[in-house]
Amino acid sequence: MAQTPFTLFNIPFGVFSTEEAPHPRCATRVGERVLDLKKYAADGGAKDIEGFIPGTFAQPSLNAFAQLSSATRSAVRQRIREDVQGNHVKESCFVEASRTKMHLPMHIGDYSDFYCSLEHCQNCSAHLSMPQIPKNWFYAPSVYNSRVSSILPSPSTFKRPSGVYYKTGTEEAVYGPSQMVDFELEMGYFVSKPVPHGETMNVDDAKKHIFGFVLLNDWSSRDLQMFEMKPLGPFHGKGSATTISPWIVTMDALEEFSVPVKTIQNPPCFPHLAYGDKAKAALNIKLFAYLERAGKRFKISQSNLRYLYWTPYQQLAHHASAGCGLNTGDLMGTGTISGDAVDADGKKLELGCLYEATEGGTKSVRLQAEDGGQAELRYLLDGDEVVFEAWCGDMKLGFGECRGMLVG
Amino acid sequence: MAQTPFTLFNIPFGVFSTEEAPHPRCATRVGERVLDLKKYAADGGAKDIEGFIPGTFAQPSLNAFAQLSSATRSAVRQRIREDVQGNHVKESCFVEASRTKMHLPMHIGDYSDFYCSLEHCQNCSAHLSMPQIPKNWFYAPSVYNSRVSSILPSPSTFKRPSGVYYKTGTEEAVYGPSQMVDFELEMGYFVSKPVPHGETMNVDDAKKHIFGFVLLNDWSSRDLQMFEMKPLGPFHGKGSATTISPWIVTMDALEEFSVPVKTIQNPPCFPHLAYGDKAKAALNIKLFAYLERAGKRFKISQSNLRYLYWTPYQQLAHHASAGCGLNTGDLMGTGTISGDAVDADGKKLELGCLYEATEGGTKSVRLQAEDGGQAELRYLLDGDEVVFEAWCGDMKLGFGECRGMLVG
Repeated sequence: MAQTPFTLFNIPFGVFSTEEAPHPRCATRVGERVLDLKKYAADGGAKDIEGFIPGTFAQPSLNAFAQLSSATRSAVRQRIREDVQGNHVKESCFVEASRTKMHLPMHIGDYSDFYCSLEHCQNCSAHLSMPQIPKNWFYAPSVYNSRVSSILPSPSTFKRPSGVYYKTGTEEAVYGPSQMVDFELEMGYFVSKPVPHGETMNVDDAKKHIFGFVLLNDWSSRDLQMFEMKPLGPFHGKGSATTISPWIVTMDALEEFSVPVKTIQNPPCFPHLAYGDKAKAALNIKLFAYLERAGKRFKISQSNLRYLYWTPYQQLAHHASAGCGLNTGDLMGTGTISGDAVDADGKKLELGCLYEATEGGTKSVRLQAEDGGQAELRYLLDGDEVVFEAWCGDMKLGFGECRGMLVG
Repeated sequence: MAQTPFTLFNIPFGVFSTEEAPHPRCATRVGERVLDLKKYAADGGAKDIEGFIPGTFAQPSLNAFAQLSSATRSAVRQRIREDVQGNHVKESCFVEASRTKMHLPMHIGDYSDFYCSLEHCQNCSAHLSMPQIPKNWFYAPSVYNSRVSSILPSPSTFKRPSGVYYKTGTEEAVYGPSQMVDFELEMGYFVSKPVPHGETMNVDDAKKHIFGFVLLNDWSSRDLQMFEMKPLGPFHGKGSATTISPWIVTMDALEEFSVPVKTIQNPPCFPHLAYGDKAKAALNIKLFAYLERAGKRFKISQSNLRYLYWTPYQQLAHHASAGCGLNTGDLMGTGTISGDAVDADGKKLELGCLYEATEGGTKSVRLQAEDGGQAELRYLLDGDEVVFEAWCGDMKLGFGECRGMLVG
């Protein structure tokens, strides 16, 4: 199982079906094998664990499982690992991953997308004719609601959207296919424990409210976005499609990769956003973005979740602070995660989208394939595939792929 | 049944429960009586209508019913009316409205709120230090995604939200209870026939995709909104609570109130937004907003759905145009609906929110109760109730109340 993201340290959760058994149900994954948790539980797996309801894994989403107490979920996950390791799971519970179809892992009630990487915001502001990041950005995590109906599980195709935009360099509005389709390198996380409408949550409890993380590609049509942003923010420019990786890596699995934040906040944040355990206020998750074109694979960028100025825990506390309510299965996008590393020539290596890398679409990026082939990239072409990966702790575990193809 | 909104012309649909039978199920309403449609169908009501599945009314939402063909829904609605009128419905199917609890009528997957009244936008822009409405507004309906978890059925209470905002007249950011809670007079409409992800719809088919209309109060915390708007648009300022009236008045019931639009669009809209049947491109629905304070009722404003610059049919076609997908039960807010009528003193009578009426919160509005009592209104006080009503065709039918109370 060398190099698999789905090591025994991982035990992620997802929802799958097969051709023979097309009803979506819950699963975990070990290497190239998918463990059907509906069958596992029906066979008596984890049945003695307090609070565990075996039928939860027969559901077509992980919401029922995520609603159980975190102690129960941890114990179930640990038991699955022990049972796999000890060969206590019947062979008939496993399916080859290549024979499965993955579905959205949770029923998503609301989807909010943040804008919380300082480097990303600095780079974007420079091209948005905003001389600097608006002052409010430093006082609370910036965020908008996005479109649930457009969330797709990896691998997915994304049809080039049409919309209204200004022809490049003019003030002439036209309606037609977007000419500036971009990706955004993000992570997503799902709410486990809900926050009732009208109530708030303590930032120090944030980890209890998060079920786990996925990779998230917030496809963005920059021309539609720039046309429509004033004054209500992004809509179709970002709401036409969002691709997520299908395996949720749990907070339990990620806890050991906790680290301090990268950037000390200045001005200091309000008390309701100050995470107490400074040593564990962020997560060290390495991110990679690739382009696949004409059978070749090109690395576009790398980054790290810990680069975020506003951490997921602060994001969630801010989200809950106005009493809007959070439900199990709600999806949060971290926002594009850019960093500030440069190569010997001063070229930025950690840019989370093409809008940054191409300086607002004005310059092409030259990419090098592993076999030496080259590609030029400005905005995405029909047939381009964008693939994200993420790894923790020297490949101790990973997230698998978040893969999407733009089609005409 | 004089003055009831729920005349026999109406036959709206909703979801209710009672103390004795707490499972939410579908209903219609006639005068002060609620007709339990689960019982009605179980007793054989409408059973011979082609395509009708009696079990759909036993569901806790109207989604299953709304998914049936519009011909089937029309026939069922007509049959219900005939059966009530002919006294063919068992007494045991009726419940006094006062003994029912109303729920959200549909399971809502996504909620989008538009910004489409020219008068509202002109008035707001004037106070938002924008000299004029951005040019993009005239080329496509302006819209943002809002928060599904915060949608409440009338009557509801809305807890004054906390958030980050600038202290009045300063650049000092503070965290605390909003000081500028406002209402917004809107209507909402629900999607019946879905539009699959990646596909678009024809504007002339819009009526087939709309199940019906409700009243919608988009509670707005203006201080939070103004703080957070740049650059991503409204979030907590508008996502903390939205109250809707619980009875959906169907497209069938409203069709006879079709009228031409009030304002000819200039520049002319793109062809994909041009509604063919000009004589029936808008709906004539009279709207009223009241304040209830200390036992007295004050009229705040009146307006009309037909005032919208971008009609609901254009809104829906624009929404679908980028391929984001629309699902049965999706809720659209029309945006605040203001008009330009003035009284003899030049005072504007048709302002859909306090932000407009108080000129950005700088002036109080003086209201007169029917019995001569007076009230001063700037932003809402704890304990204030806001009540919307809407009527069609000289009170031929109405929408009932959309009622919400702000609490501290």
